[in-house]
Amino acid sequence: MNEIRILKTQGKARAGELNTQHGIIQTPVLCPVGTQGSVKTLTPQDIKDVGMHMILANTYHLYLRPGIPTLEKMGGLHKFMNWDGAILTDSGGYQLYSLSKLRRINDDGVIFRSHIDGSQHTFTPELAIKYQESIGADIIMVLDECIDHNESRERVWAAMVRTHQWAERCLKVHNKAGQALYAIVQGGVFPDLRKISAEYLTALNFDGYAIGGLSIGEPKNVTFDITEQTVGLLPADKPRYLMGVGAPEDVVECVARGIDIFDCAMPTRVARNGALYTPTGRVDIENAVYSQQDSPIDATCHCYTCRNFSAAYLHHLFRSKELLAYRLATIHNLAFMSNLVQSVRNSILDGTFSTFRSEFLSQYQTTDEKTRISQKQKWLDARENKTLYEA
Amino acid sequence: MNEIRILKTQGKARAGELNTQHGIIQTPVLCPVGTQGSVKTLTPQDIKDVGMHMILANTYHLYLRPGIPTLEKMGGLHKFMNWDGAILTDSGGYQLYSLSKLRRINDDGVIFRSHIDGSQHTFTPELAIKYQESIGADIIMVLDECIDHNESRERVWAAMVRTHQWAERCLKVHNKAGQALYAIVQGGVFPDLRKISAEYLTALNFDGYAIGGLSIGEPKNVTFDITEQTVGLLPADKPRYLMGVGAPEDVVECVARGIDIFDCAMPTRVARNGALYTPTGRVDIENAVYSQQDSPIDATCHCYTCRNFSAAYLHHLFRSKELLAYRLATIHNLAFMSNLVQSVRNSILDGTFSTFRSEFLSQYQTTDEKTRISQKQKWLDARENKTLYEA
Repeated sequence: MNEIRILKTQGKARAGELNTQHGIIQTPVLCPVGTQGSVKTLTPQDIKDVGMHMILANTYHLYLRPGIPTLEKMGGLHKFMNWDGAILTDSGGYQLYSLSKLRRINDDGVIFRSHIDGSQHTFTPELAIKYQESIGADIIMVLDECIDHNESRERVWAAMVRTHQWAERCLKVHNKAGQALYAIVQGGVFPDLRKISAEYLTALNFDGYAIGGLSIGEPKNVTFDITEQTVGLLPADKPRYLMGVGAPEDVVECVARGIDIFDCAMPTRVARNGALYTPTGRVDIENAVYSQQDSPIDATCHCYTCRNFSAAYLHHLFRSKELLAYRLATIHNLAFMSNLVQSVRNSILDGTFSTFRSEFLSQYQTTDEKTRISQKQKWLDARENKTLYEA
Repeated sequence: MNEIRILKTQGKARAGELNTQHGIIQTPVLCPVGTQGSVKTLTPQDIKDVGMHMILANTYHLYLRPGIPTLEKMGGLHKFMNWDGAILTDSGGYQLYSLSKLRRINDDGVIFRSHIDGSQHTFTPELAIKYQESIGADIIMVLDECIDHNESRERVWAAMVRTHQWAERCLKVHNKAGQALYAIVQGGVFPDLRKISAEYLTALNFDGYAIGGLSIGEPKNVTFDITEQTVGLLPADKPRYLMGVGAPEDVVECVARGIDIFDCAMPTRVARNGALYTPTGRVDIENAVYSQQDSPIDATCHCYTCRNFSAAYLHHLFRSKELLAYRLATIHNLAFMSNLVQSVRNSILDGTFSTFRSEFLSQYQTTDEKTRISQKQKWLDARENKTLYEA
């Protein structure tokens, strides 16, 4: 249980199978985000229909609502949300950093106020494991300390050391058969700290290794470089998980650097803002150019949305703020990502990944038009982040 | 085409089959409301899955967005929204009364400003028919003048006379084979005016007859009395449509008075506010009593929502403002209504309707608890009406 079987490699890219309590997950894999026990707008059947079999949920959110006692009474998150695929839970480290107010962090843990009602709570490494055992995810994460990407080396060092201590405490108390526990390599944008962190944690023999603290504002080449360097320090026989990364081009680039598992709120979040993926890049469905397009948004796509509805209808639903819009767009973007990851995997298996990679990236270009959309998207993302916490 | 075949009657209640261009519709029938070309949160497949085969859309909304030229280019509303069931369109009369600003009504038609952007537009009886022909609904309505339920007899008289003139003009220009045109009996809460209106319009030989201007604030016994009186003035061989009525108890009571067709935004609108129908009445899923209920909201219900999700999970989704909540609740409420109408029909067919009626109404009681929910519901409805126009 919990091991990864590597079927084929091409360069650093790997195609494999991850064994979980809820089935074998083909890797590389992207987990859509179901923060509060729901991948926004979708039923569990919808998630499977787009070709996805592992989702991410957030311990921080589930702890606050519905609460651990409710989840225990309901028999865990799988049963509560009626999902029989695999679940990965984040420990809460990132949400304590990004969402909660008035944090006080010390070596024992984090005292924070709920972003919902301001009530005071405490997370410790031991409690984070206890809560994740109650939630019953297939893969759980150690509690880590996250900090801003532009913090000083001293602060990054201190957070890293604390993350290591907490990882050891998590490992010590974790006691649920079949449930995998992954460590999180920290060290910010400092290669020497990443090396120290990777070496410290790999000596402890976790079930898998995540790379944390990336894609939080640093330049993209830094994300790629630190990912590549850190992967080189991780054991080949364990799964490698890059946290919070999942834009189409980033997935392709980071598979090329040896990543097996991704999670990202972006495909679903931008979908709800009307930004739809196509092989040539993101398009804004509210753009007037789609108001009369009788064909689907992406003629090459076989998703439920593209099989049944024209771009003009989606345009109308978004302009009219019809709730159906958000579901249809979410289905399309997740199907696009599922198809992309599957194509990446197939190309690794048949030895054509490097060709696939260069062809995809040359097609999926940022044009001037795309840049404008991207600017609007940043604004939309920021707006939605204020009201719909998801990452 | 367009005739109703009455299979069985019990008292004034009728069970029949309505022949439309998009299939035979079993009556009595309740049309869910898809104002803007979408039954909020549902795909066309979802609508069929709850057992519904005719929907209502609004000419006023569709005229403003996506606009008649777009609908013509897309081949009509059926194709645009990918719905192959039947469609009934309201002419815009009620929306011009309830939604638009700065109306000026004269004998020619209505000059109004869009509720979306304030732009100025004109509806005439002839244009209302032309637009509905372009939309391509199976059943379309004459343009009528709607007024408040507490208007003076003189104002009601004047609006009724204008409605008659407009109905004649609609009949004169209507020219789409296979598409049924229904007249709308007006006359407010005045039985003598209802009689004049029914006699005037039935002399003109429309495909069907609607009763308008009810359920807009008058006491419920008045709604029932005027419905009963008006139905008695309508021809037995034509379909009878009670506009804007669709609460569970009202459907049962008005079928008993001879109505065949209903439409109502209520089942879907209250669903989005967390009010779910059960055989004993509406419940508020956000109520704390549901936070730990591992069984579905209605153990007797076979809908997708009740087959797959506990009340506790729905409670969590609503409390967390998850978009999936609105779809699951909508599916449940429409399945409840579909099942109710089907049970009503079956009881007419097997001669047990009066028993069914009294049993249903004795079970579906307004308790003190229900009254409190109802108060909250009124506030929620009012709040949503401000932002999500649907009726």
